[in-house]
Amino acid sequence: MAPSYKVIYFNFTGRGEPIRMILTYGGIPFEDSRFEMTEWPKVKPTTPLGQVPILEIDGKRYTQTMPICRYLGRLLKIDGKDMLEDMAIDSAVEIIWDILKIAYERAMGGGNEEKKKQLLDKLHEQMPVLLGKFEEDTKKNGFIATNKLSWADLVFLCGYEDMENLLAGENPFAKYPHLQKLKNKLLENKNIKEYLLKRPTNTMMTAYNLKNDLK
Amino acid sequence: MAPSYKVIYFNFTGRGEPIRMILTYGGIPFEDSRFEMTEWPKVKPTTPLGQVPILEIDGKRYTQTMPICRYLGRLLKIDGKDMLEDMAIDSAVEIIWDILKIAYERAMGGGNEEKKKQLLDKLHEQMPVLLGKFEEDTKKNGFIATNKLSWADLVFLCGYEDMENLLAGENPFAKYPHLQKLKNKLLENKNIKEYLLKRPTNTMMTAYNLKNDLK
Repeated sequence: MAPSYKVIYFNFTGRGEPIRMILTYGGIPFEDSRFEMTEWPKVKPTTPLGQVPILEIDGKRYTQTMPICRYLGRLLKIDGKDMLEDMAIDSAVEIIWDILKIAYERAMGGGNEEKKKQLLDKLHEQMPVLLGKFEEDTKKNGFIATNKLSWADLVFLCGYEDMENLLAGENPFAKYPHLQKLKNKLLENKNIKEYLLKRPTNTMMTAYNLKNDLK
Repeated sequence: MAPSYKVIYFNFTGRGEPIRMILTYGGIPFEDSRFEMTEWPKVKPTTPLGQVPILEIDGKRYTQTMPICRYLGRLLKIDGKDMLEDMAIDSAVEIIWDILKIAYERAMGGGNEEKKKQLLDKLHEQMPVLLGKFEEDTKKNGFIATNKLSWADLVFLCGYEDMENLLAGENPFAKYPHLQKLKNKLLENKNIKEYLLKRPTNTMMTAYNLKNDLK
């Protein structure tokens, strides 16, 4: 019998969405267990390490987003064709998360305007280098990390949505037509389309929703 | 012919040391190319993404510490016996780095005492949970992530040294006898011993050196 999967995370994209997106792409049914921020103090003590997301596989709990995504990517065979390609995928994913983490830290930076300014400057310094690299690679190979779709592309798709929200008004991908094209290509996937149409509304980040770009 | 390896990083432990440590453990000769902090502005423009560490394999450059460490771990067959074990290894490594990143952020927090206090509080909240988990796992299995030595243990060894420095005076592993035992066991490795004895002095973190614990 196929194992049963359950994703436990906030009713939010962030660290949970890449797990949901990879399961979705792979056509693996999963229970999408979401809770609101206000429920976190109640949920936290029930988690193994005080952290979400959690992926349950047949009731056994796994934590840490990227290790889970890598596992699922390998399971679905959307990993690299060899160890060097796997390293390229891992590296792309790390870069996407490094940028996202700065953007999230800025968004959650509380009232400290000076710190937020510093983080925005850091983003503006790093994005042209890192997104520029991805743009170049995608132009050449059609995908973020390798020359066929990998789980890094699905992590990128989630990152695309979050960046559009975290930098709402800045149009962070305007200068990267091949990254936009990749995003649109991924949105043609039937499973992803269906998921985006039925996904609960992310009430915390409403400026941009991948759903808007569905054809 | 065996490929040639070169590690480019600050004359410092941090993100470079796990790469050096895994190469060392595996008995893979590498050029240990170190530079001082003051030289960074000169080095930075020569790097692919403005980042170090870099691993060169036959002159081809790879960035991002953990993807490199994972690649080397697989190459040396100190990875998991299956995909679930690989996920356990990846997850342990992420946790080690999450703790370290908070500790580093605190150390480099500039003059902002309030922020530093917040980060120390966060460390004191998370360490008992996360190190407690490792202590329990290590007590049961002898190693951090699986029941035989994996590259996660070598990342842990580097993390151990950095935490002892970043929290000098706090004795962060005092409550975790099995983690201390693991550290001592790893220090019995002949390659590691030799490396620690000849390694250039880390002038930025001098409170603790793994070398002191060699038998």
